[in-house]
Amino acid sequence: MTFTDKLNQIIEKKNSFLCVGLDTDIVKLPDHLKSKPSNVVEFNKNIIEATSAYAAAYKINIAFYESRGIEGWNDLAETLEFIDENTIVIADAKRGDIGNTSLQYAKTFFETYNFDAITVAPYMGFDSLSPFLEYKDKGVFALCLTSNKGSKDFQYLESNGQLLYQHVAKKLNEWNIHENIGLVAGATHPEELKDLRERAGDIPFLIPGVGAQGGDLEAVLNNALTQDKNGILINSSRGIIFASSEKDYAEIAAQKSKELVEQMRAKI
Amino acid sequence: MTFTDKLNQIIEKKNSFLCVGLDTDIVKLPDHLKSKPSNVVEFNKNIIEATSAYAAAYKINIAFYESRGIEGWNDLAETLEFIDENTIVIADAKRGDIGNTSLQYAKTFFETYNFDAITVAPYMGFDSLSPFLEYKDKGVFALCLTSNKGSKDFQYLESNGQLLYQHVAKKLNEWNIHENIGLVAGATHPEELKDLRERAGDIPFLIPGVGAQGGDLEAVLNNALTQDKNGILINSSRGIIFASSEKDYAEIAAQKSKELVEQMRAKI
Repeated sequence: MTFTDKLNQIIEKKNSFLCVGLDTDIVKLPDHLKSKPSNVVEFNKNIIEATSAYAAAYKINIAFYESRGIEGWNDLAETLEFIDENTIVIADAKRGDIGNTSLQYAKTFFETYNFDAITVAPYMGFDSLSPFLEYKDKGVFALCLTSNKGSKDFQYLESNGQLLYQHVAKKLNEWNIHENIGLVAGATHPEELKDLRERAGDIPFLIPGVGAQGGDLEAVLNNALTQDKNGILINSSRGIIFASSEKDYAEIAAQKSKELVEQMRAKI
Repeated sequence: MTFTDKLNQIIEKKNSFLCVGLDTDIVKLPDHLKSKPSNVVEFNKNIIEATSAYAAAYKINIAFYESRGIEGWNDLAETLEFIDENTIVIADAKRGDIGNTSLQYAKTFFETYNFDAITVAPYMGFDSLSPFLEYKDKGVFALCLTSNKGSKDFQYLESNGQLLYQHVAKKLNEWNIHENIGLVAGATHPEELKDLRERAGDIPFLIPGVGAQGGDLEAVLNNALTQDKNGILINSSRGIIFASSEKDYAEIAAQKSKELVEQMRAKI
């Protein structure tokens, strides 16, 4: 089964496009956990248990683990053990380099840590992505139109009648031989999502920017779904995991997840 | 002192533009080290001791450490201890994400591991780079025109009379308030280096692609130097560290470094 089919099956089974982002910033943990040993693992475990009924995917933001050195990487490995097989686990790593180096990054996330998918940066072109793509059952979400203000700096440059992010989308579609490519497009650009869906066929979209970054969930659902009403993951990180900084954080995360998923279900 | 000034002082003091790339791939170690414990650290230590008279900088390719999990990160930390303060140490990490995430990556490399500089990807624009740039005494080398074949996929797209990598160079120059920005441009594009130097003022160039990737050292020296005959680091990784797979690997690495540095000195 291709990665795209696997993802869509999970979306359909859970009846959810929700991706919960585990951007577990140690300084934002609830106060009662702040000085506890293994607090990141305990926090992640409780968040995962509380949200797994709603989450089609978890996206682990590698930066928040890597920045804490060995301890962070150990927390990451422990966290992965709490996520069941019926959920996609994405390493949000934005990696990408020349071929022999990308091969090492692919090993890191697909072998050493056994993620289902990774985010990559497209600037260096095809040969920087191909070592990831060769893992045919793994997903590779390439940055296309990002949710931040800086997306205006280069992604909207026009060349031969198409903007840079549209060129990227077109190439990603061409390179999608194993049906394991996806693209990252921000919820902060709802109009562009519609255009991207037309250009990129049925490739999965990973859509951050709902919640803390201000994207509109309804507009995303109207514009980004495939004709089969699947093919998207909508990520919320801070809006779910740090919705409460009290002892009820897991309960509130479940509630926020449920609210998002109900809004999703109402629209399809 | 700005990062650019610090780098140029080291270049002048060592009379060398050489950056030695520690892409220490465990499967390419000399046979006699292959089954030895701590072999990566021993190898790096011997390479550093043998080449430190020639190297203005070391570039540690994070992928080759990260892919080995905790053991790799420990090897990286130990390796850093062997490099003296009169040498720039670059984390070749190609990171870049939205602001709050880039801040974590900056912490990883500038605080947890105390590198002097990092490589970053520019696709997400200014706010993805600014958390790195706020470390005013640290260097930030952004990808501009890369040495690989895939550089043709997007970097040469023309927009308003300029190619994408030229737009990137221009923006980097604009954003260089703290004089701590550099750019990455491959030795495999010697003509473009000349053009980039004209566009990018005196910002430092990190130039990979000499050696295994086929770039021409003489052409690089003719085209990329600033008017003050500094401002470049020319990286060689495999061509130095894996030049011999026998017990004489460190001696041969020193010899290869010396040859490159003598070619550099003959041209300025």
